[in-house]
Amino acid sequence: MKRSVIDILDLTTAEIDGLLSTAEDIMDHPAKYAEKCRGKKLATLFFEPSTRTRLSFEAAMYELGGNVLGFSEPNSSSASKGESMADTARVLSCYADIMAIRHPMAGAPYVAAQNASVPVINAGDGGHCHPTQTLADLLTIKRKRGSLENLTIGFCGDLKYGRTVHSLIAALARYPGTNFVLISPEELALPSYVKREILEGQGIAYRQATSLEVVLPELDILYMTRIQRERFENPEEYERLKDSYILTAEKLNRAREDLIVMHPLPRVNEISVSVDADPRACYFLQVLCGKYMRMALILKLLESTAADVAPFADSVVFDKLRCKNPSCISSKEQELRHAFYPVSEENGIYRCVYCEEKVKL
Amino acid sequence: MKRSVIDILDLTTAEIDGLLSTAEDIMDHPAKYAEKCRGKKLATLFFEPSTRTRLSFEAAMYELGGNVLGFSEPNSSSASKGESMADTARVLSCYADIMAIRHPMAGAPYVAAQNASVPVINAGDGGHCHPTQTLADLLTIKRKRGSLENLTIGFCGDLKYGRTVHSLIAALARYPGTNFVLISPEELALPSYVKREILEGQGIAYRQATSLEVVLPELDILYMTRIQRERFENPEEYERLKDSYILTAEKLNRAREDLIVMHPLPRVNEISVSVDADPRACYFLQVLCGKYMRMALILKLLESTAADVAPFADSVVFDKLRCKNPSCISSKEQELRHAFYPVSEENGIYRCVYCEEKVKL
Amino acid sequence: MKRSVIDILDLTTAEIDGLLSTAEDIMDHPAKYAEKCRGKKLATLFFEPSTRTRLSFEAAMYELGGNVLGFSEPNSSSASKGESMADTARVLSCYADIMAIRHPMAGAPYVAAQNASVPVINAGDGGHCHPTQTLADLLTIKRKRGSLENLTIGFCGDLKYGRTVHSLIAALARYPGTNFVLISPEELALPSYVKREILEGQGIAYRQATSLEVVLPELDILYMTRIQRERFENPEEYERLKDSYILTAEKLNRAREDLIVMHPLPRVNEISVSVDADPRACYFLQVLCGKYMRMALILKLLESTAADVAPFADSVVFDKLRCKNPSCISSKEQELRHAFYPVSEENGIYRCVYCEEKVKL
Repeated sequence: MKRSVIDILDLTTAEIDGLLSTAEDIMDHPAKYAEKCRGKKLATLFFEPSTRTRLSFEAAMYELGGNVLGFSEPNSSSASKGESMADTARVLSCYADIMAIRHPMAGAPYVAAQNASVPVINAGDGGHCHPTQTLADLLTIKRKRGSLENLTIGFCGDLKYGRTVHSLIAALARYPGTNFVLISPEELALPSYVKREILEGQGIAYRQATSLEVVLPELDILYMTRIQRERFENPEEYERLKDSYILTAEKLNRAREDLIVMHPLPRVNEISVSVDADPRACYFLQVLCGKYMRMALILKLLESTAADVAPFADSVVFDKLRCKNPSCISSKEQELRHAFYPVSEENGIYRCVYCEEKVKL
Repeated sequence: MKRSVIDILDLTTAEIDGLLSTAEDIMDHPAKYAEKCRGKKLATLFFEPSTRTRLSFEAAMYELGGNVLGFSEPNSSSASKGESMADTARVLSCYADIMAIRHPMAGAPYVAAQNASVPVINAGDGGHCHPTQTLADLLTIKRKRGSLENLTIGFCGDLKYGRTVHSLIAALARYPGTNFVLISPEELALPSYVKREILEGQGIAYRQATSLEVVLPELDILYMTRIQRERFENPEEYERLKDSYILTAEKLNRAREDLIVMHPLPRVNEISVSVDADPRACYFLQVLCGKYMRMALILKLLESTAADVAPFADSVVFDKLRCKNPSCISSKEQELRHAFYPVSEENGIYRCVYCEEKVKL
Repeated sequence: MKRSVIDILDLTTAEIDGLLSTAEDIMDHPAKYAEKCRGKKLATLFFEPSTRTRLSFEAAMYELGGNVLGFSEPNSSSASKGESMADTARVLSCYADIMAIRHPMAGAPYVAAQNASVPVINAGDGGHCHPTQTLADLLTIKRKRGSLENLTIGFCGDLKYGRTVHSLIAALARYPGTNFVLISPEELALPSYVKREILEGQGIAYRQATSLEVVLPELDILYMTRIQRERFENPEEYERLKDSYILTAEKLNRAREDLIVMHPLPRVNEISVSVDADPRACYFLQVLCGKYMRMALILKLLESTAADVAPFADSVVFDKLRCKNPSCISSKEQELRHAFYPVSEENGIYRCVYCEEKVKL
């Protein structure tokens, strides 16, 4: 069992700063890194399709001189024959030096990490985590603003289900002077537990808004996300709101000259193509930054030693509670032990170690 | 935006001759080229499956010392999440140094080429173009005949829908002394616009025939294609005709000793396996030639500079006309501008820049 | 046509011993082999999905410094356009230096081998053969026992349909002092022709048992296989039996200290995860051994010369008999000649050269 990255918070800010400078060094001196992973193999295990993320990892490994193997579809995996994630991880450890795992069930990459003898990178586990997207976002901001401190960042659109939004908020909350502006309709507001635990818990400045146009002029960074019709109870409500969360060249006129417009992609229509030509549009730079941060992370984890890693914390309780989250790997795999860590023992509040779902004893 | 190849006519005869001699040099001195693309990446973006073409590109890139990434199925692509071809091309430009794109919609690789910052090769866009197949055909002829001039070439089978036939006719029409024999049933004759614009327009010698056996003795080259039952209005007609367009060892007795038998493959039964042993059977040589021409093309495009490329011609008119072709990328993608170039302005005849469908103003 | 391996018995014991020592040398000195296949290409043609086997071949080729291309799904192959296996093999010979073929129809890799100009490795053809799994099993035994002689090996579970069981029995039967214990329910007993032709035919010691617990203490090796519900006529019978063929830590207490527990994987529940921590559990070592034996086999076949290979034996009769096996490639491909070799000419007993199905003249 080697050092793995499942959640962006598995990395300290010092480690993230280290990854950022490695990535910037790679951007400036690619030749220096072109043979670093010669003879090494990355396994890309995609239990659900995600071309962008998979190809970013593959490009990263090739630019380090390594090779790539894996699959891009669940049906071409042994899991379709009922193999457990633990066994798949042990088997793949015989074939690869490091793995990137994408899975529809929260916690699947964590289970893999606990059973693999090589490092595991979470390439997205359902609605749970997607740390390398957050690393891409951080490098983009660093490149454009020079620092991650004292920034006013607006998140616009679906803040309720947006996994990338929650991760980036958690990551930026660790830097001084961050100021969040949460722009969304009521239906898609940031979940209260995120506000409470991350923002209020750490005394981070934030405000909520329903109009993009009103707050746009204050922002250093605008992080756009997609609003999906399916998320709304009534379609009229969706129709009424959707345009107000679409960024157009005309709206952008009211923004700062040095604004950064970001989007995790793929976009559908939430950013008009008329914006693409604007120098403030940074969503394709994000793609490039994602590749370089994945290169930095692969290098870091391949250098890691077993000592880096902690097994379950002593405080974890087993099989005393059961996770009810249908999208949690523990609800799919029979032989997996149910494991929870205490949030507040006196109140009997625990979270599932796989999906972080909260339960009360 | 770099030099791309969407249509065989994007290459001048001088450029094609250059590719032919590079390919022949690779065949003779493979070691010289084994490291030419070290550190470079080819993206194979197959929005519809085509193993033969994809593996030919991949083998080509590996034999140049490069790497390959991509997908072979639409459902494992971000397009399935509604991403535009333009965005996909911009994103992939961050991951690869050159792209080969296969797509069911005519014009999709052209749209990619206009938005990518790396060269794009059309690996087949629906019924529209497939230039690397034509390059494979030309090298096969060059290898066996020593030249592309003064040849009598018979095309047999489905000349109406056969994309490879139209492209090869267009390419060979540029060489002196070419003489075409068009062998097909009425239902599947060469479209009149091809005859008019390419053959008559340039005063190229050709004749039509319905019997393979009758014309076989005159031919330097016989290019076989598949006849599909679905193409016929009445099945009896298909049953009556099909055998007459099947090449057998026995029919081949009436042909020249130095004939070349070609076929784009895969074949079903239009060439009997009894023909395979005949030295005149060149359809597997075509496969090999395809790999070497793709190597030559990849090398050429990677060396190209932005200056090579022209954006839309000034004569192109935008959004004044709409393309009605349901298989045209412009009918699928919302944000794509409808663009047409004039064929004859006085008569108000235009062609769609994406699929070349003709419209009248 | 080069040397290919379709059946484990295509290799002499001397050749197998050679592969075993090459594999052990690779395990001990991997760096020595890291560039052996530089510039070479392996094609992995998987006409049915099998991630484990495919990734093992790919890891093997990469660790030899070579490249890999191919497909992992039938629908992304030209076969889906009706191309014959013979044509596919000829075409792929233009793209790769060696092929590994997985196919649902028995004999498909054999047909490929007869038409390819490069070596073909059978990566599993339906229920017929899977020689590289057997090579993995043999190396595992060699590593743990030091020799393949004088071993008592128990096969437990489904011995009727277990392709890997039949191959390993055939391979071990060639070593002196082998003693087989066949542990299964009546319904899933070893087929009588295997007993007659391989065991009794060569005077190999064996006994049958229905209880794992009873025979466990005698065994040097326990080879577990999965029992599938579908194999049973009545479900009650399955329910009654299934647990008795599941290996648990508790049952393992009755076994030798130096027992080796093997399983071809993937497992479902036939070996409890509680066994994984036991030093006698060798099923993940098998995975590793599979990679090294595939490396050894790839090296051996790439060094082979055309002279190595024999076409059809003179004794083979063509088109005089037809194979009735619906899972035989000859029943799928029209143009394939039906070919049989005599088992006993006086009694008119023949076997299909593709699937080995027995027929009476």
